[in-house]
Amino acid sequence: MTVVAELLAIGDELVHGAGLDTNSKWLAGELERIGAAVHRFGVTSDDPGHLRGAIAEACARADVVVATGGLGPTLDDRTRDVVADLLGGPLWFDPASWQQIQDWLRSRGRPVPDSNRRQAFFPPGALPIGNPCGTAPGFAVPIGRARFFALPGVPREMQALAGTHVLPAVAALPGLRPVAQSWLRVLGPSEALLGERIAPFMVAGRNPAVGVTAQSGLLTIRIVAAAATREQAEAQCAATAAELRPLVREWLFAEGLLDLPELVVQRLLAAGRTLALAESCTGGLAASRLVDVPGASSVFAGGVVAYGNAAKLELLGVPGELLQRHGAVSEPVAAAMAEGARARFHADLAVATTGIAGPGGGTPDKPVGTVCLALATGAGARAATLKLPDLGRGFVRERAVHEVWRLLLGAGDAAFVAAARL
Amino acid sequence: MTVVAELLAIGDELVHGAGLDTNSKWLAGELERIGAAVHRFGVTSDDPGHLRGAIAEACARADVVVATGGLGPTLDDRTRDVVADLLGGPLWFDPASWQQIQDWLRSRGRPVPDSNRRQAFFPPGALPIGNPCGTAPGFAVPIGRARFFALPGVPREMQALAGTHVLPAVAALPGLRPVAQSWLRVLGPSEALLGERIAPFMVAGRNPAVGVTAQSGLLTIRIVAAAATREQAEAQCAATAAELRPLVREWLFAEGLLDLPELVVQRLLAAGRTLALAESCTGGLAASRLVDVPGASSVFAGGVVAYGNAAKLELLGVPGELLQRHGAVSEPVAAAMAEGARARFHADLAVATTGIAGPGGGTPDKPVGTVCLALATGAGARAATLKLPDLGRGFVRERAVHEVWRLLLGAGDAAFVAAARL
Repeated sequence: MTVVAELLAIGDELVHGAGLDTNSKWLAGELERIGAAVHRFGVTSDDPGHLRGAIAEACARADVVVATGGLGPTLDDRTRDVVADLLGGPLWFDPASWQQIQDWLRSRGRPVPDSNRRQAFFPPGALPIGNPCGTAPGFAVPIGRARFFALPGVPREMQALAGTHVLPAVAALPGLRPVAQSWLRVLGPSEALLGERIAPFMVAGRNPAVGVTAQSGLLTIRIVAAAATREQAEAQCAATAAELRPLVREWLFAEGLLDLPELVVQRLLAAGRTLALAESCTGGLAASRLVDVPGASSVFAGGVVAYGNAAKLELLGVPGELLQRHGAVSEPVAAAMAEGARARFHADLAVATTGIAGPGGGTPDKPVGTVCLALATGAGARAATLKLPDLGRGFVRERAVHEVWRLLLGAGDAAFVAAARL
Repeated sequence: MTVVAELLAIGDELVHGAGLDTNSKWLAGELERIGAAVHRFGVTSDDPGHLRGAIAEACARADVVVATGGLGPTLDDRTRDVVADLLGGPLWFDPASWQQIQDWLRSRGRPVPDSNRRQAFFPPGALPIGNPCGTAPGFAVPIGRARFFALPGVPREMQALAGTHVLPAVAALPGLRPVAQSWLRVLGPSEALLGERIAPFMVAGRNPAVGVTAQSGLLTIRIVAAAATREQAEAQCAATAAELRPLVREWLFAEGLLDLPELVVQRLLAAGRTLALAESCTGGLAASRLVDVPGASSVFAGGVVAYGNAAKLELLGVPGELLQRHGAVSEPVAAAMAEGARARFHADLAVATTGIAGPGGGTPDKPVGTVCLALATGAGARAATLKLPDLGRGFVRERAVHEVWRLLLGAGDAAFVAAARL
């Protein structure tokens, strides 16, 4: 027996290609962690007919269905109406929910539009789920074989309600098989080459399952184990990881379920070091990813997006003579950018990127995809040139940022010293 | 008669919450533009049973089904096998596709692993779709009532194959009803307040349909019309936009289907002006969004992520006395940051952000959500203080970036002068 969960994202903007569902991804990870099996998600428009069909089908297949979206105050939010229709009864008004909505708005000094009252109506038999972060309460109601949960579409509200109500309710069901994951991060080989190396691990039905995903050249080997307890699942993951590690040693540079910028922040915090960035071709992308990590401000001293030569000269102190002699995309300029950023931000380490992301700007000597990276430490700066495949501007920039993380993570804690790689 | 399309994203990493499907969003927009109606998407694991069920169900409901993913060279890529099984026949080998794959790899100086040969096998009756950007060919094959298309999961490869094969094939079907969209961008009111203002437009079944989506305080009014021709649909959108505009005049600051950073780049290009950024609380997020736009380098002079006071002093030349007297989050410091960035990057305009994104750092006087924005032009700098709702670090940073775009877009082309708003 397993607990099967399905996710349903609701909203015209999603099926019209004007918005992206990120809620189901988050919910899938959380539900699997506690032991529900997620095999499918759906996305549907607000159209009452399609919405009704999608909810009914999911509730016929799964034990737990979590729908997100369609609980707003505007007339195009129809989840509550469609569920009431599906259950064959009228909506009922919950004065306590209406009071919560008014309190929430007033406490933020906002007016209380009468239309928010819509959000205090619920389908027959539904249990309201109060929303501490917004005006849209969720609700729980049995539909068919499923426990159906409706949550607001705003991610932080959805996460709050899932955390206090949905996940605890699911965690109490019998038949859970907790899932554990391990990720190995690899840069270098093609997906096919990596797949050959670890092929025996990738057969269908293996537990732990092993899969590979590629994102702008970054390959992630995902190990996923399901077991009777979380501890067993984790032990199985660890055992498979131990078998895989020697097979991918030369490409492996990071492990764990944290995103790479999170890992970098964690390592910098642990080492008590600060980092500065000087970005030309990556144009603030690396800085932005770092700043997304809570706590980054204590290790990230700052960065410069130095596109033009003027910025490289004046903000980073790159000698004009270096720019003239070697060009902006060169190892000496990358090294000078890193040293300049390290000095000006008073940082322990600095990384610089300068390259040709395309679509224009390539030459026979320095084609699109040429990226120079440099790392400056107290012991000086070192630089290297990468020839990345020209798979589009976005690819080159993303791939260059992966290389920044590898530079910082791959060289080992000892000194984050470039020598090991550059 | 309409042409109903469904999208299916395939991959264990998607249902395990380790990856996000962005392909269906893009395909939905493109398919609707040419006149197919998209009501639902699905996401499914690589598990053969679930994959087979999801493909069979979609092909029973829709006229066109486009699946993405599961065509890679590794053993966890099973789309071709599952489709062959569904069609009750063996896979067949296409030497021409295998040659293309080898040529593609060799032309990039990569080895040709034997496992890539898997990618040249196709289900019975399938038409291979050559891939100019990678090793995974797609294929087209009828399943049930549907034309089924399998495309690779890598977005740039998927988009290339969709553009050359899927969209032209769909565009030739009878019964298309092209869809046009218009978006009005609004900052200021709550979603409920905006919904009340435009309620008569938001009733179910209206054509054009009008909906509202919220993203970190940015409200987008989406107008979606379907008609016999694209021109008619566009005219209907324009008519509804003309009715809505006066109702939201005081909050409206941008229109069109471009993302806001794209609009900013377009306006800067049109005005022949360059922009620099000095970001404290937004930490490179605004710069990164700008740099994502192709062509940004000709208008974006550069930016500084100046978290700490040292960076504000040394890189932007903010007087230490201002920092001491007013604090880093203050209008005088924001103005000095903008002036410093404008001067150092030799830009026509510069915008600075400094604020408290949380979770820590708030005071009774300057709570989390306090953000100072400044705009420097040739005529000097002006600054303003925003009190954004404390809905989390991510919200405050995103909302502050929306305000940067409003600052640049809202004041009109004449001078991008702050006076109009600040």
